[in-house]
Amino acid sequence: MQYKIKQQEFRIKFQALSKDNNVRLGQITTQRGIINTPAFLPVGTNAAVKAMSPDEMKELGAEILLSNTYHLCLRPGHEIIREVGGLHSFMKWDGPILTDSGGFQVFSLAPLRKIKDNGVEFRSHIDGSLHFLTPERVMEIQRALGADIAMVFDECTPFPASKEYAHNSLKLTTEWARRCKEARDNPPTPPFKKGGCKLNPSLEKGDVGGFSDLQQSLFGIVQGGVYTDLRKQSAEELIQMDFDGYALGGLSVGEPKELMYDVVHFTTPLLPQERPRYLMGIGDLMDVLEAVSAGIDMFDCVMPTRNARNGTLFTSQGRVSIKREEFRKDPDPLDPDCNCYTCQNFSRAYLRHVFMSREILSMRLNTTHNLHFYLEFFRKMREAIKDNSFAGFRKAWTPVLQNNFHEG
Amino acid sequence: MQYKIKQQEFRIKFQALSKDNNVRLGQITTQRGIINTPAFLPVGTNAAVKAMSPDEMKELGAEILLSNTYHLCLRPGHEIIREVGGLHSFMKWDGPILTDSGGFQVFSLAPLRKIKDNGVEFRSHIDGSLHFLTPERVMEIQRALGADIAMVFDECTPFPASKEYAHNSLKLTTEWARRCKEARDNPPTPPFKKGGCKLNPSLEKGDVGGFSDLQQSLFGIVQGGVYTDLRKQSAEELIQMDFDGYALGGLSVGEPKELMYDVVHFTTPLLPQERPRYLMGIGDLMDVLEAVSAGIDMFDCVMPTRNARNGTLFTSQGRVSIKREEFRKDPDPLDPDCNCYTCQNFSRAYLRHVFMSREILSMRLNTTHNLHFYLEFFRKMREAIKDNSFAGFRKAWTPVLQNNFHEG
Repeated sequence: MQYKIKQQEFRIKFQALSKDNNVRLGQITTQRGIINTPAFLPVGTNAAVKAMSPDEMKELGAEILLSNTYHLCLRPGHEIIREVGGLHSFMKWDGPILTDSGGFQVFSLAPLRKIKDNGVEFRSHIDGSLHFLTPERVMEIQRALGADIAMVFDECTPFPASKEYAHNSLKLTTEWARRCKEARDNPPTPPFKKGGCKLNPSLEKGDVGGFSDLQQSLFGIVQGGVYTDLRKQSAEELIQMDFDGYALGGLSVGEPKELMYDVVHFTTPLLPQERPRYLMGIGDLMDVLEAVSAGIDMFDCVMPTRNARNGTLFTSQGRVSIKREEFRKDPDPLDPDCNCYTCQNFSRAYLRHVFMSREILSMRLNTTHNLHFYLEFFRKMREAIKDNSFAGFRKAWTPVLQNNFHEG
Repeated sequence: MQYKIKQQEFRIKFQALSKDNNVRLGQITTQRGIINTPAFLPVGTNAAVKAMSPDEMKELGAEILLSNTYHLCLRPGHEIIREVGGLHSFMKWDGPILTDSGGFQVFSLAPLRKIKDNGVEFRSHIDGSLHFLTPERVMEIQRALGADIAMVFDECTPFPASKEYAHNSLKLTTEWARRCKEARDNPPTPPFKKGGCKLNPSLEKGDVGGFSDLQQSLFGIVQGGVYTDLRKQSAEELIQMDFDGYALGGLSVGEPKELMYDVVHFTTPLLPQERPRYLMGIGDLMDVLEAVSAGIDMFDCVMPTRNARNGTLFTSQGRVSIKREEFRKDPDPLDPDCNCYTCQNFSRAYLRHVFMSREILSMRLNTTHNLHFYLEFFRKMREAIKDNSFAGFRKAWTPVLQNNFHEG
């Protein structure tokens, strides 16, 4: 027996606001808030953006977070998150959340994976336990999490891959996408159990974070490796199924940049104008500029957060390593043009000191700065698109993004 | 040539507000704010309270922080902190700071130390470099840091120690205390260099955080091991030198609790009523209750912060380990009676999850809770003293503090 959902329109709506050639300015409306596009999605793998509190993410202006299905189904387990009221309540983030499908992680993290028609068998990278993910199960997990935007389960085609491999992989991804959509449209379970919870009084009323009648948005993922005809086939097959948005997957997996840019420029125009387009896992800002010029609307990447923890910081003058000797006595803020908490309060000398001392505060201050830099970059980019000056924006930022003081 | 200080009265003032037998309620007035006593000093070893921002420490109600001379003189180096405007500006904490003298760390952390009459030679635990600390140098370091309250350089007598060892050690500590006071009263250098600093505009005017005419408060440290006659001798010799406050050192170094309590009860009443009394390094709240009953006013300890990072949390029901299996699906806050950010926003299930996932946010949320617990405990204890009900407070808390759900 299947759980009957009310036919309410909860899914996202995408509205293109203006265009500067292929470059798009838009808004994705979700029941949890508006996402201005082009948008950057900070990554909260384990239901937390590393080093940050959800309040701080809100203050930084993040409009949507990404979280990882693969990680959360292994730990703590999606059933636990379902029971305590869903991912939003669990991690105390009331804005939209996109969850990936776990496809990428199964293929990049899990040992001993075996692809079968029905799904993928793999061992957990945490404790070696055996798991089996199918398209239906992946949808069930994302439903338990309560993601606003779910992604279809896909095989992330590696690079290099023969055309035959890429073709077979694509066929599998298309079939899995069909099964994911079927599962989304006919969910087998109610979204959440009722239960009392002091932190979430709405649970008492069975209205769990507004999601008791959740109908998730679902994005298809275009695969096909570096073969344009396969990318075209994948896009066309997915478009026929009518997803709420479309992602480009299987990029930035080792292929040369030019090849990636070619695929993005070839594939993006094939996708429907009226749906958001998402380039998965890309976050190098030079790549972002290229992809936005092709009409991409959404990006996610661990680059700002991971680099922050390693002491690599983005500034209006270029990328720097905070451990550089020259910062030892430097009383100035990291980036005098930045108005983030870190730059408003601490000197380069202090940032270097807490980094060298491995203080947790170092990771916090660096992450705050890098995320602020990224979100501000996207905000300014949207302003430029609005003013029909994306080309000028790109030209002005290119030397900055290529400047690298990294070697300390 | 010596730097002439204006004879302004910058030192702390201590005022006893009320007493409940030996138990004291008081206020220490500093130029950076009032410290209500009995007071707990959170520890910011490397110029940062681990996992916390200075803003958060203010919000939690911390009225004074402790920082470590030994760590800061090795990294980043006190001259660097002096150049960027002193420790307050460096770590962005505008409340009072007490710095220890480094004595305890030299004896507990540094390898290959050699005690000489003039000072101690030791190697850095960070990079093995050779250093030499004298009483004069320790005062110069604390002056460079700009601590509101400095501590004399002492030898922390170990346990067990023969009476002869303890006596010789005590004589050294007394002589070093005399030299520290002489150095404090006649500082050889101006406190800070002038310099431009965007983050600290007052530097331009040569008025560094209000400390251009700093006259630090200085506390003596009573040693003498577990020998009461030596403790008496130490206290008397220090009192003759007239310090701004008095600390009990060399306790909680391995001796049985009863012995520690005996020394505290014997020594505390020997110290002047009109000066604050500080029990160094003690923070187990059972010990705090005992010491407060003897008339101690100040405590510092890494217990709340270090335990937090290890997942051990203090609650109104006792001490618990957040990794306990029973918390896996627990939707309730850690401590329903607690109004800290952690308990107001997150479930036990989430706290367990981020701890098991080793998320940085886990250390933040746990530290926030434990510090809130400690500072609230002290606040409530002060209220009880004010109401002449310390005995009842102690009786009510004893079973809670002894309750331990720690084994997970």
